[in-house]
Amino acid sequence: MQQLAIITTGGTIDKIYFDDKSDYKIGAPQISEILGQFGVAFDYEVHALMRKDSLHITDEDRQLILETVKALPQDRVLITHGTDSMVETARVLQIITDKTIVLTGALNPARFLGSDAVFNIGCAISAVQLLPAGVYVAMNGKIWDPLKVRKNRNANRFEQA
Amino acid sequence: MQQLAIITTGGTIDKIYFDDKSDYKIGAPQISEILGQFGVAFDYEVHALMRKDSLHITDEDRQLILETVKALPQDRVLITHGTDSMVETARVLQIITDKTIVLTGALNPARFLGSDAVFNIGCAISAVQLLPAGVYVAMNGKIWDPLKVRKNRNANRFEQA
Amino acid sequence: MQQLAIITTGGTIDKIYFDDKSDYKIGAPQISEILGQFGVAFDYEVHALMRKDSLHITDEDRQLILETVKALPQDRVLITHGTDSMVETARVLQIITDKTIVLTGALNPARFLGSDAVFNIGCAISAVQLLPAGVYVAMNGKIWDPLKVRKNRNANRFEQA
Amino acid sequence: MQQLAIITTGGTIDKIYFDDKSDYKIGAPQISEILGQFGVAFDYEVHALMRKDSLHITDEDRQLILETVKALPQDRVLITHGTDSMVETARVLQIITDKTIVLTGALNPARFLGSDAVFNIGCAISAVQLLPAGVYVAMNGKIWDPLKVRKNRNANRFEQA
Repeated sequence: MQQLAIITTGGTIDKIYFDDKSDYKIGAPQISEILGQFGVAFDYEVHALMRKDSLHITDEDRQLILETVKALPQDRVLITHGTDSMVETARVLQIITDKTIVLTGALNPARFLGSDAVFNIGCAISAVQLLPAGVYVAMNGKIWDPLKVRKNRNANRFEQA
Repeated sequence: MQQLAIITTGGTIDKIYFDDKSDYKIGAPQISEILGQFGVAFDYEVHALMRKDSLHITDEDRQLILETVKALPQDRVLITHGTDSMVETARVLQIITDKTIVLTGALNPARFLGSDAVFNIGCAISAVQLLPAGVYVAMNGKIWDPLKVRKNRNANRFEQA
Repeated sequence: MQQLAIITTGGTIDKIYFDDKSDYKIGAPQISEILGQFGVAFDYEVHALMRKDSLHITDEDRQLILETVKALPQDRVLITHGTDSMVETARVLQIITDKTIVLTGALNPARFLGSDAVFNIGCAISAVQLLPAGVYVAMNGKIWDPLKVRKNRNANRFEQA
Repeated sequence: MQQLAIITTGGTIDKIYFDDKSDYKIGAPQISEILGQFGVAFDYEVHALMRKDSLHITDEDRQLILETVKALPQDRVLITHGTDSMVETARVLQIITDKTIVLTGALNPARFLGSDAVFNIGCAISAVQLLPAGVYVAMNGKIWDPLKVRKNRNANRFEQA
């Protein structure tokens, strides 16, 4: 069994560009490529659960994420998720109290120059290994309690709620 | 007077990302940044004429581009343009017969890793300096006659018409 | 007073390229640019202490780093350092027992495509905020005890000693 | 037979990074990857002739390049070359008068953010297709006569000699 489970749900982090007409679509999980190229010194497995913009994640989707995390043998779980409803999903997951769960994502697509994706994944990778059981949001260089954070859409960043 | 005039009209080359809700928008002309960082050994001036996805360029917009090019003192003009209607605009410009006019753009935004923007601008920069008067499309590493090229939207490339 | 102090000492993370003759040189600290562009939600100050390849860091340099860290008012300190002698410097710093000190760096220059710099800084930023007092090395996605880690030069990665 | 022959000789364009101790080395030809990712609309073949920093290119190396170009069935040849002695090699090749030969390279390695490699290759690709027989240097956005150009090492750019 791998030490760490990673669940991907889509979101901006995985967006890739098509063309003038079709806009951006959500592609394969970028976290696999990112961790692959840095030779990380731990084992992990990636579950590509869904490919959704976070505005389209429904209550049923959140139940599916919840049940998936519960069923995992690992007690350390990293979830990549769109930023617009990441906090909402994190709160739903707080019913799980015996695993360390860290949600992260990106304000700009991973394949965009200057994207925050790699930085956020770095923050989340440390957090999921170091923190005790609980649910956390890793964005903008900080580890947040889901009950005390919100996305400020105008400033395009996470801040204390 | 500068040797080369550059007119920017928008298109994918200039797209920048906002967020989950607002999708991509067309930002400041990327060609200014691109030429700036490579220390090109010639003088040029950039006219940011419009910021439009090429699907939204109207007949009036094309007339504006035409009149603008005509009025320029330079006889070498590079135009960045969205790819979906680049060929159409090129054909309208063919009424001008005493200037060398090269249109280019990008199939992926300039700020995207692996974008063709810088390569295409390189091709266009040579072409606009080397070619005799006429209108040309510089895409996919070739210099095309506007009457003999089309964008293959499915393959996302330019090809012989 | 800022919450976090960052000390830069040089190393591959800060290498920039000059030309065929002069090879790579160590430039301005890349961590300032990196944290600047991601809008991190905490305060920090950067001390550019030296610009040395880690193979050229001497015992006196290590004493200077040690005295500088001791004298800082902050009790959380992130140090960027060349990878070849990062572990050695970390062990010297272990004399300090009342601060959380995390060392990181990069196996490839920050300005290189595919560099691990941003990922490592992300890991280190979480670690320095979450860990209790002590000295740690953040490389290859893990937080290491300086007494139990070494750089494997052939494989170009950090591993358990 | 392919339309275009590409000969690679090494130089900064192909430099890849190893580590603190071993500095940069010249890797596989970057032009293959670059042209591959942009879906260029013409056929070409790549001959990886040598992997040398241009300061180490000897008179014998230049004779080898000369004989190789002569022996090619193609009459359009693009050569990637280190910048420090590119002009010297170009002058040696001027003995060939029935082919269009364009030399290009990079002032910064192709794998470096902000490298001029892709831009220069774009310029050279147009030039080698558009120009009559002769030998040319494509650097800094211009097509130069080898007899009238030099590298200004302090300014790190090519300029009129």
